[in-house]
Amino acid sequence: ARESDHQPAERSVEFPVSVVLPAGGTGERTGLQTPKQFCSFLGRPLISYTIQAFERVSWIQSIVVVVAKENMDLMMDIIQRFQHRKVRVVPGGSTRHRSIRNGVLALGEGEGEEKGEQTLPAGRPKVAIIHDAVRPFVEEDFLYKIAVAAKEHGAAGAIRPLVSTVIATTSENYLDHSLERAKYRASEMPQGFRYDVICQAYQRCTESDFEFGTECLHLALQYCGTNAKLIEGPPTLWKVTYKRDLAAAESIIKETLSRSACIITGGSAQAAALADALHKAVGALDMELDVIPDLVGVNSRYLLKEWNFIQVSGSQSGLSEVEALLTSLEAVNRALLHPVIVIWVHLNCSDELSISGRMAEPTAIMDLASVAKLRNILLYGIQLHQSKGTECWERSASRVAEITSALIRDRSPALVGQLLQA
Amino acid sequence: ARESDHQPAERSVEFPVSVVLPAGGTGERTGLQTPKQFCSFLGRPLISYTIQAFERVSWIQSIVVVVAKENMDLMMDIIQRFQHRKVRVVPGGSTRHRSIRNGVLALGEGEGEEKGEQTLPAGRPKVAIIHDAVRPFVEEDFLYKIAVAAKEHGAAGAIRPLVSTVIATTSENYLDHSLERAKYRASEMPQGFRYDVICQAYQRCTESDFEFGTECLHLALQYCGTNAKLIEGPPTLWKVTYKRDLAAAESIIKETLSRSACIITGGSAQAAALADALHKAVGALDMELDVIPDLVGVNSRYLLKEWNFIQVSGSQSGLSEVEALLTSLEAVNRALLHPVIVIWVHLNCSDELSISGRMAEPTAIMDLASVAKLRNILLYGIQLHQSKGTECWERSASRVAEITSALIRDRSPALVGQLLQA
Ligand SMILES: [Mg+2]
Ligand SMILES: [Mg+2]
Repeated sequence: ARESDHQPAERSVEFPVSVVLPAGGTGERTGLQTPKQFCSFLGRPLISYTIQAFERVSWIQSIVVVVAKENMDLMMDIIQRFQHRKVRVVPGGSTRHRSIRNGVLALGEGEGEEKGEQTLPAGRPKVAIIHDAVRPFVEEDFLYKIAVAAKEHGAAGAIRPLVSTVIATTSENYLDHSLERAKYRASEMPQGFRYDVICQAYQRCTESDFEFGTECLHLALQYCGTNAKLIEGPPTLWKVTYKRDLAAAESIIKETLSRSACIITGGSAQAAALADALHKAVGALDMELDVIPDLVGVNSRYLLKEWNFIQVSGSQSGLSEVEALLTSLEAVNRALLHPVIVIWVHLNCSDELSISGRMAEPTAIMDLASVAKLRNILLYGIQLHQSKGTECWERSASRVAEITSALIRDRSPALVGQLLQA
Repeated sequence: ARESDHQPAERSVEFPVSVVLPAGGTGERTGLQTPKQFCSFLGRPLISYTIQAFERVSWIQSIVVVVAKENMDLMMDIIQRFQHRKVRVVPGGSTRHRSIRNGVLALGEGEGEEKGEQTLPAGRPKVAIIHDAVRPFVEEDFLYKIAVAAKEHGAAGAIRPLVSTVIATTSENYLDHSLERAKYRASEMPQGFRYDVICQAYQRCTESDFEFGTECLHLALQYCGTNAKLIEGPPTLWKVTYKRDLAAAESIIKETLSRSACIITGGSAQAAALADALHKAVGALDMELDVIPDLVGVNSRYLLKEWNFIQVSGSQSGLSEVEALLTSLEAVNRALLHPVIVIWVHLNCSDELSISGRMAEPTAIMDLASVAKLRNILLYGIQLHQSKGTECWERSASRVAEITSALIRDRSPALVGQLLQA
């Protein structure tokens, strides 16, 4: 039921597959100034999420992104900033089909040729996958199905059931007739083509096709006699089209990043007891927790695996453990693609603290958080006053869980550095 | 460009209009246990938002909600809890058309008859509007267009452009042909019918229509010879269908509630200066602010108009102004339909405060917030330390604006009672 699970497929394809990503849209339907593919989600443009979805698939060789000429520089900046590999950028044409053709031709070009700092194309592919820049949640197993079916049948495309009845209208906008919903499907992306099929389709099609057409499967049928194999895709293949879709996409990304967290106890018995209580309380909130004493040895793997860290500190400790965690995360460049959450949970026996101690912490965590934020790490603090009975302790632990869960799900940059009370 | 603006139409219809809301769906496509129409958004089920969208239209007389028998009690509870008027609940049939027919027939029944505590139906309508429970953002001006067109043409329906190409498939799931997108439209809701037309359509249609049909416009055409007038609706008419749509709907609701806030200065010069700085900073964040000294006299209208209040208090003040504000909000039952945000911004000259003062506030605001939360009012605090130079002051004001804006947009119940630092 999770909408955006990334399940690495166990299968690999044995033939060369490359990808064309048309990203020339102007975003008129969102009602926003920025074209959708360049809208940012947690600090990263949508197009980068889509590129990443293909880049992580081992058997995909090369990705050609087709953008409007005026966005070439912006696109190159995005590729450099988020360290994308396998990607080339080519300028688009005046229509969708002209842009896709440019991308398809670019897949066959420049083999072995040095092109400045750009990654080299891997050579003429057997299958070209065409996708939309604004469908970021495509999964490896579905790409596998499309690639294999495209090789076998010449063309393959994703379909979805129709959500609404489709009707034909008269020229005066009256109902003419309605289609029987069960006989029709919505044609979605990705689509896959044998490279010779898609090249031939674009060689043979007319100027009118280039000008007014939108459906690649139609060109393959009309000009190559290839009836595409249609494969039902998951709902996550939907196209980010309207303003509301931006919120939907962000919520899927946030949900993906909020499925698990790592609690670091620092080894103290006090902290381990809190971690236990949190485990229970956060478990009830549908988030998986790993509890570890530290990030040393085999546990250092969590630095490369986890997006959320909860550092529990005993009453005597300051922020030194958090500082060490921040340093480790920066060392492995963990926050390159997504903001990493670090929550410092401080067990505070009020009586022990001097006034100066009480004053110093809010300033110290705020300063640390300001610096971390520049590196895409969002740091928050939670103070738990524990000089109370068992019942209060449980209530506090459940409040820590509630706050922790909200901080991880919201990923709010405005609240970094705050020392919250549980 | 705002997706969910509620623009009250200036026009009224001069004939009786009533509404049928089929709400029997099982929500299978969201992958959730709860049917979508009963999923909660900021503590209120989706169906209540949809009912509210019709109830606020002065010329709509009566709303019949059709629910599955097993949800009748749940639906009655929702109506009572959110104090809906104009609404009756009737049990659904085994299919969509059977449910809608039940609703249509109920519109003509029981005139003048006393039925326990339920609102009386207003009598046989001239036009019946049929809508989906899971399309909560329908606007008065669009309902007006549908009602008037239905009266004139016998039937009228909302349409939207197709987002994807529609294709016909062969029995083996190959592409048969693709439809020319420009000639077709997606049929959406609301739809309107002259009452005699929709009654006749349901009298004449077959068991097969009741069993397998989905499109009311089709029945009006086939059994009454009525070609519905089709009217393009806004994108917000979309149907909450998939899990991602829940996030999209929530974001539209939150955006609607976050467009403006009311700053109450309490009359102190200090507080007014901060309000000025906030005005600038929050204005840049695309939120409208009204700055008022208090809620007395004509300013009391803000209590019934605003969803977000920022109470600025000078360094000498405690929480008494906030307590008064909470009391006033409760007195007018303001938080019945949406959570109301109250943010206490405390100008704090650290030197002046005793240690006990510093300790007492966090506890006091947390206690106050816990009680307010039970009444759907979310209270947060922001402490601004002002014993600094002008530059620091501006930076602090801009931090208050950033935090304020985030609290208003996120409406997070987990963070109520926190005293944040600016
Ligand atoms: Mg996915
Ligand atoms: Mg609306």
